[in-house]
Amino acid sequence: MSVAQQSARRGGRAARRALRRDTTTFASPVPNITRRIPLTELCSEEGMEIIEANAETVLQEVGIDFKDDEEVQAMWREAGADVDGDRVRFPKGLIRSLLRTAPATYVQHARNPERNVTIGGDNVVFAPVYGPPFVSDLDNGRRYGTIKDFQNLVKLAYLAPHIHHSGGTVCEPVDIPVNKRHLDMVHAHMKLSDKPFMGAVTADERAADTIKMSEILFGREFVSENTVCTSLINVNSPLAFDATMLGSLKTYARARQAVIITPFIMSGAMGPVSAVGTLIQAMAEAMAGIALTQLCRPGTPVVFGLFSSALSMQTGAPTFGTPEPNLVLSAAAQLARRMKVPFRSGGNLCGSKLPDAQAAYESANSLMPAVLCGVNFVLHGAGWMEGGLVSSFEKFVMDCDQLGMAATLLKGYDFTEDGPALDAIREVGPSGHYLGCAHTQTHFESAFYRSTLADNNAFEHWEAAGSQDMAERANGLWKEWLASYEQPPLDPAIDEALQAFIDKRKEAMADKWS
Amino acid sequence: MSVAQQSARRGGRAARRALRRDTTTFASPVPNITRRIPLTELCSEEGMEIIEANAETVLQEVGIDFKDDEEVQAMWREAGADVDGDRVRFPKGLIRSLLRTAPATYVQHARNPERNVTIGGDNVVFAPVYGPPFVSDLDNGRRYGTIKDFQNLVKLAYLAPHIHHSGGTVCEPVDIPVNKRHLDMVHAHMKLSDKPFMGAVTADERAADTIKMSEILFGREFVSENTVCTSLINVNSPLAFDATMLGSLKTYARARQAVIITPFIMSGAMGPVSAVGTLIQAMAEAMAGIALTQLCRPGTPVVFGLFSSALSMQTGAPTFGTPEPNLVLSAAAQLARRMKVPFRSGGNLCGSKLPDAQAAYESANSLMPAVLCGVNFVLHGAGWMEGGLVSSFEKFVMDCDQLGMAATLLKGYDFTEDGPALDAIREVGPSGHYLGCAHTQTHFESAFYRSTLADNNAFEHWEAAGSQDMAERANGLWKEWLASYEQPPLDPAIDEALQAFIDKRKEAMADKWS
Repeated sequence: MSVAQQSARRGGRAARRALRRDTTTFASPVPNITRRIPLTELCSEEGMEIIEANAETVLQEVGIDFKDDEEVQAMWREAGADVDGDRVRFPKGLIRSLLRTAPATYVQHARNPERNVTIGGDNVVFAPVYGPPFVSDLDNGRRYGTIKDFQNLVKLAYLAPHIHHSGGTVCEPVDIPVNKRHLDMVHAHMKLSDKPFMGAVTADERAADTIKMSEILFGREFVSENTVCTSLINVNSPLAFDATMLGSLKTYARARQAVIITPFIMSGAMGPVSAVGTLIQAMAEAMAGIALTQLCRPGTPVVFGLFSSALSMQTGAPTFGTPEPNLVLSAAAQLARRMKVPFRSGGNLCGSKLPDAQAAYESANSLMPAVLCGVNFVLHGAGWMEGGLVSSFEKFVMDCDQLGMAATLLKGYDFTEDGPALDAIREVGPSGHYLGCAHTQTHFESAFYRSTLADNNAFEHWEAAGSQDMAERANGLWKEWLASYEQPPLDPAIDEALQAFIDKRKEAMADKWS
Repeated sequence: MSVAQQSARRGGRAARRALRRDTTTFASPVPNITRRIPLTELCSEEGMEIIEANAETVLQEVGIDFKDDEEVQAMWREAGADVDGDRVRFPKGLIRSLLRTAPATYVQHARNPERNVTIGGDNVVFAPVYGPPFVSDLDNGRRYGTIKDFQNLVKLAYLAPHIHHSGGTVCEPVDIPVNKRHLDMVHAHMKLSDKPFMGAVTADERAADTIKMSEILFGREFVSENTVCTSLINVNSPLAFDATMLGSLKTYARARQAVIITPFIMSGAMGPVSAVGTLIQAMAEAMAGIALTQLCRPGTPVVFGLFSSALSMQTGAPTFGTPEPNLVLSAAAQLARRMKVPFRSGGNLCGSKLPDAQAAYESANSLMPAVLCGVNFVLHGAGWMEGGLVSSFEKFVMDCDQLGMAATLLKGYDFTEDGPALDAIREVGPSGHYLGCAHTQTHFESAFYRSTLADNNAFEHWEAAGSQDMAERANGLWKEWLASYEQPPLDPAIDEALQAFIDKRKEAMADKWS
C-alpha cells in the first residue's frame, strides 16, 4: 500500500496528525512560502513588449534545433511548424497558442502530504543545490562526491526548516556507475526525506525509472493523476535541445510529471553579451520547450526556468551575483508571469572556492533579487559553491540561514494591532527603553528572525570563544544537524519494493563509467 | 581666492577641463548615480496611510522631547506647538505645514565642481562608513583609530570610483583631543579629497568651525548661497533630541547647510519590537526634526535619515542584514518620497568581527534593498564592520566592489539597437558560440561589471596562486590603492589659510580627552 493510499485510508485529519507527530522534530512549519510583499519588477512594460516581439522573430526566422529526435520533429511538423532537419521554425502565433494549456500553478505531491508544495503564483519553494561533481567541507577539503555525501546532503535538506524540496542531483555520486546512480539518488530522496523531489534526466530510461519508482512510492493510480516530481530540462543554449533532454522531456510530460525548461546561458558564450539579447534568446528557448511539453500532453505542468550568468572575459569562467544576470532574472520573471507559467531561477549562487566573503556577497546578491522579483522555484538554494562545481557542507547550512531570512522578508508587514504598537509607544514615551515594556515582553521570542550562524556577541566574548569565522561555525552546525537526523518513517513494504526494483534494474545493466 | 571663485573666473568649460586633467587618474566617471530602474516598494498604499496617521497621533499625543534647549522650545511655542518643559506636542497639521518648504532635491557642492552631487529624486550617492572608534586590517588587527587611519580612509574614499562622497567621521581619530579632532577631520576631507563631505556635529561650535573652514575653502559668499556640507543629526530615539544635536542642527540649518535627521532605532530597545511600530516612531521623529530645520530657515536642505537595526534578544547587540530592518527601510523610503524629501539609509552594514561570510551576507542584504528601494544617500557604503565599532580596510575595498555592482544594476536595461542584439542571434544561430561574433567583440570590454576582488579562475590556478580568500586579496588591494594616491591639487593659499585657522582654534582651547 502506498503512502498516499495509507493516508487516504486513515482519513485526512487523523493521517495528517499522525504524520505531524512523526516529523515534528525536523518539521518545516509550512510546506512552502506564500509571498505577502509586492513584486519587484525592474523592466518596463515597453521593454517586455520589445523582448516578446523579438523572441517571436527569433522563433520564426532563426528557429530552434531539436536534435536527433525524429519523433519530436514529426510532432512539430504535424503541429504546423516548418521543419528542416533538426531545425524547426515556427509560424507566428503557433507557440503562443500551444502555451495556453500550461497551468499557472500546480501542486507537487510529497510522500508526506503536509509537505506538498504549490509551484507558481504567489508561492515560493526553496530547493538545494543541483549538479556538482565535487563536494567540500573544512575537514576534508574538495573531493569528488560519493553516494554517502549525496545521502548526507539529502538529510541536511530534509532537516533544514526553510528548504521545502529535496531537490535532485545534490551532488554527483561518482562512486556509482553513471548508468545506475540515478536509482540510488532517487531512492535516497524517497527514503531519507519526505519532501518532494526531482527525477533523473540523463536518459529517457532513467526518467522512466524515476516514474516507476514513484509509482511504487505513491501508488500507480496516484501518479497517473498527480504530479510527484519536477525535473530539470536544460536547453543546450543557444537555441537547441539535444536528444537526451528531449527524451526525458517527453517521458515526464506524457506522464503528467513537471519539467523545468531552463535556458542555460552564460552571456557572451551561449547568448549575446547583453542583458536584453540574453532575454530574447531565453524567451524563445523557453517558449519552444514549454510548447513542446504541451504538444506531448496538454495541461502537463511546466516551469519557465532560467540559469543566467555573465562570462568573465578574463578567465572564460561564469560569474555570479553580478548586476547583469540580475537584470536578466527580473525581466525573465516578468516574462514568465505574462506567459502565466511558474518561474524558476536564482539560488545562493557564487563563484568562490571557499565559503568566504566572495561566496556570501555573490550568494546574497543572487538570492535577494530572486526573492524580490518573484521566483517561484528557487533551485540551488543551499550548498552551491565554485560556479556549481562543488556542494559545500558549510555553505549548505550558511545558505539555509539566508533562506530563513528570505522567508521572513516575504511575510511582509504586520498591520494587525500588534504591528503598530501604539500602546507600547505611549507606554515607553520619549527617552524610554522598550526592552521591559509589555509589547516587547509579549513578542520578543518571535519578533525577529534569529540567525543560526551570525555571531553578535561582544568582541571579547567572540575572541574568548576562539575568534571563529562563519564558515568555522557552519562546520559545527552541519555536523550537529546530521547527528540529530532521524529517518522519516517509510512503510517497510514500500521500502523493500523500491530496493527490489533497484536491484533488478542494476542487474539488468553492465556498469558504465562514462 | 577660493576654488569656487577660481573656477568661476576661469569659466565653466575650461575650468572643468582643467580639473578633469588634474583628477582623471582617480576620477569617478559621474558625480553620482541616476537610477534607471523602477523602485521596489514593499509596503502597500494602505500601509503607508496607517503609518502616517499613527505618526501624527504620536506627535499630537505623546510628543517629542527637545532637551535642554530653551531656544528651540521657544521656537516651537511660537510656531503653535504645546510646550511643557522639554516635551513638545504638535497640533494636527502643524508639522506637515512646516515640511512643505523642505526641498525635494539639493546639490551639495564639492571643491571640484565635477564632483558636485545631487541628493534626492532619482539620484543615488554612496558615502563611506561613519563613526567607528576602532579600525582593523589583516596585518595589525583591531585597534583604536588614529588621524593617520582617518587620512588613509579619506584617501581610499577619494580613490574609490564608486564612492561619490568623502563622508564624515570615517573613523574616530582618538589620538587627537576630543575637542580638537573635528578640525583635523574636516581638514583631511578638504585637503586629501575633492569630493563633498560631512561636517562636525559633536558640539555647535564644532559645527560652526566646519562652516568657517568651508568659507575658507569655497569663499564666504559661495557658502552663504550654496550647500557645501551635509551633516548627520541623530535622534536620541525614542522621541528625543539632545542639546548637542539641536545645537548642531540649528547652526547648519541657519547656514543653509544640509542635515540628515536620523531616527536611530534598534527595534526592541529604542523602538517597538515590530517593523510597523518602528516605522511609526521613526516617521514621527523624522517629521519633527525636519520641521525644526524649516523653522530655523525655510527651504534649508534636509534629508530623512533612518538607521534601523533589530536587537539580538540573546546578546543585546544590534543585528544587521536581517529581514525586519529591510521591511522598515523599504517603507521608510516610501514615506520619505511621500514627504518629498531625500532619504538616507542603508550601506554595507554587518555585525561580524571579520571580513568573512557573515560580514558579506549581512552587507549585501543591507545594500541590495537600499539600492532597490530608492535610498538617495547611502551612508556606511564602505568599510563598516562589527556593528559600526570598526572601520575595516579590507572591507572598505570589498564593499567598494559591491558599490560598483550596485551602480551597474541601477543603470538598468539597454534597449538601443545593441541591447536586443538580434543580428548577433542571427549570426550565431542554434548551437553556435558567441565569443567570436561581431557583437561580442564590440562590447566585451564594457559588457559586464568587472569585479576588482572576485576570483573566477579555475580551482587549480587559484590554488597555485596561494588559495587566497577575498579578505586576503582585499588586503593587497587597499595597499595598492594607497600606494597610487596623489593629492588632488589645492591652492596653497587656501591650504595655508585652513592650517592657520586650525592652529588658532587649537591654541584657543585646552585639550579635552572625553
